[in-house]
Amino acid sequence: MMNSLNEIAEYLKSKDNFVILTHQYPDGDTLGSAFALCRALRKLGKKSRVIVNGNLAKKFEYLAKNMEEQDFEYQTVVTVDIASASLLGDLRNEFENIVDVSVDHHGMNAPFAKMTYVDANAAANTENIYKLVKILGVEIDKDIANCIYTGLCTDTGCFKFTNVTPNTMRIAADLMELGCDSAWINRIMFDTKSMARIRIERAVLNTLTTHCNDKIAVIYTTLAMEQETGAGESDMDGLAAIPRQIEGVVIGITIKEKGENYFRISVRTLDGNNAASICKNFGGGGHAAAGGCAINGTLEEVKEKILKAAEEELMRN
Amino acid sequence: MMNSLNEIAEYLKSKDNFVILTHQYPDGDTLGSAFALCRALRKLGKKSRVIVNGNLAKKFEYLAKNMEEQDFEYQTVVTVDIASASLLGDLRNEFENIVDVSVDHHGMNAPFAKMTYVDANAAANTENIYKLVKILGVEIDKDIANCIYTGLCTDTGCFKFTNVTPNTMRIAADLMELGCDSAWINRIMFDTKSMARIRIERAVLNTLTTHCNDKIAVIYTTLAMEQETGAGESDMDGLAAIPRQIEGVVIGITIKEKGENYFRISVRTLDGNNAASICKNFGGGGHAAAGGCAINGTLEEVKEKILKAAEEELMRN
Repeated sequence: MMNSLNEIAEYLKSKDNFVILTHQYPDGDTLGSAFALCRALRKLGKKSRVIVNGNLAKKFEYLAKNMEEQDFEYQTVVTVDIASASLLGDLRNEFENIVDVSVDHHGMNAPFAKMTYVDANAAANTENIYKLVKILGVEIDKDIANCIYTGLCTDTGCFKFTNVTPNTMRIAADLMELGCDSAWINRIMFDTKSMARIRIERAVLNTLTTHCNDKIAVIYTTLAMEQETGAGESDMDGLAAIPRQIEGVVIGITIKEKGENYFRISVRTLDGNNAASICKNFGGGGHAAAGGCAINGTLEEVKEKILKAAEEELMRN
Repeated sequence: MMNSLNEIAEYLKSKDNFVILTHQYPDGDTLGSAFALCRALRKLGKKSRVIVNGNLAKKFEYLAKNMEEQDFEYQTVVTVDIASASLLGDLRNEFENIVDVSVDHHGMNAPFAKMTYVDANAAANTENIYKLVKILGVEIDKDIANCIYTGLCTDTGCFKFTNVTPNTMRIAADLMELGCDSAWINRIMFDTKSMARIRIERAVLNTLTTHCNDKIAVIYTTLAMEQETGAGESDMDGLAAIPRQIEGVVIGITIKEKGENYFRISVRTLDGNNAASICKNFGGGGHAAAGGCAINGTLEEVKEKILKAAEEELMRN
């Protein structure tokens, strides 16, 4: 079932008329993977286009810069950074059974393509694409370098997280030598906030409470707050990181109103407190350090329930 | 005047009884440089200690972990990450004229030591220390790697800024292979905020105003806000980055009350707007992208003055 990158490179060289699919709600890694590979295949004289599975956010538009439209009937289907067919979303019906090549970096990958390559040690899938493009013999130009770098930095919090390896850093170094706009990309991805984001941050900071000797911190957002601040889905990204960032906090809880008496909860933990255990009380799940669940009730009821579960987890440690 | 790292390594090997000085208000790079070099010299069998020029912030205590006290009369004085004697601060009187070796990475370095090495292309001074330790023939252990990595990540905003080079990334990769706690250090440096920091952030966001079609953003802090939030100097670090982070903002202004009718201003710019030009109107200075000045008056007067200068700069572009 699993193939080597050499096998996949040979296969790609033997084919033409590619569509490359990103996962739904596309992020920097799936988009960077897709546009890097698309550009590389075009440099081999192939016809190739990316199907962006959702909206191409404005901040990612440079990935597609100066690529002319290519109109053709597709013959070869490639997916990038897609761990299972369900993540094809709206594209699932058309493509699920005809994916030729899947290149991914999720350890939980459930293969659905004819040929699959997964390296779960790759911090970003663009690490795999970098290797693949080199095997294809394509010279990495500045545009390809920018696409690959985008995956690296967005999937690692700018080289901050535990998934970063020496290889991640060395690929980034190579890309910088190839002229990639690393500092500019970093600024767009990590140092630029919409005014709505600033407003919703200000609003959630006003909801912050701490509990159990400041070991647990809770923030919340309501639909009214979203409306007042004008914050959309992308402006809300990453708010869940805020409570656990506070010094001394080992359980950070973010409560988001999603409908009437319906709230989604994100839990982030440190120091052996298990986020998934907390969330399982409410039919949710996740990992040791990050979990999620949904709870029905009023905001006050929901906050009380999740806090009680968090306190119990804290007592166990 | 300038020496090679080889010359400096030979000199260090020929001497003993070292004190290594950091600059005043010590940051991650000067501290990481000092403790890395101190540990390396000890591995060569030398006596060596660091004089921390100010407070060793709690978050940096790991740099000195497991280092026993060494009591001796110093014979050799080394400074790290110090661009001019004035940055010796309180240590200037005792040491200014007896510094043997200075290792620095500031292009504006004004030499004051017998031997000086400056590489202005090094994003962090610990890049220079990394090279020096290797030339000294010392095996880099996990503790030394942590010290060097700390300089790299803190002086680059976690590999985000324009000063990062391929060499920075490759040294970080080497350090990771040597067992450094990169992700843990990154979390302490970049994903941990004091409660006072959270409170002062919330307070400054409440002061945010935008001007000139949202191209200029202004925030301010007052002494009363500092008192109410309990924010100290270190909690205030980096607040000046907030206004320019806002999408579309090309001039970000931060006004800090420092005394009665006395304010210090930080200006950050993008897109050809010159921060130093704005600040020169008030006897200040800086670089194209970041400048500072002080203005006397009430908060309202000061804000009006700096806004007027910023608007004029905006009109020129």
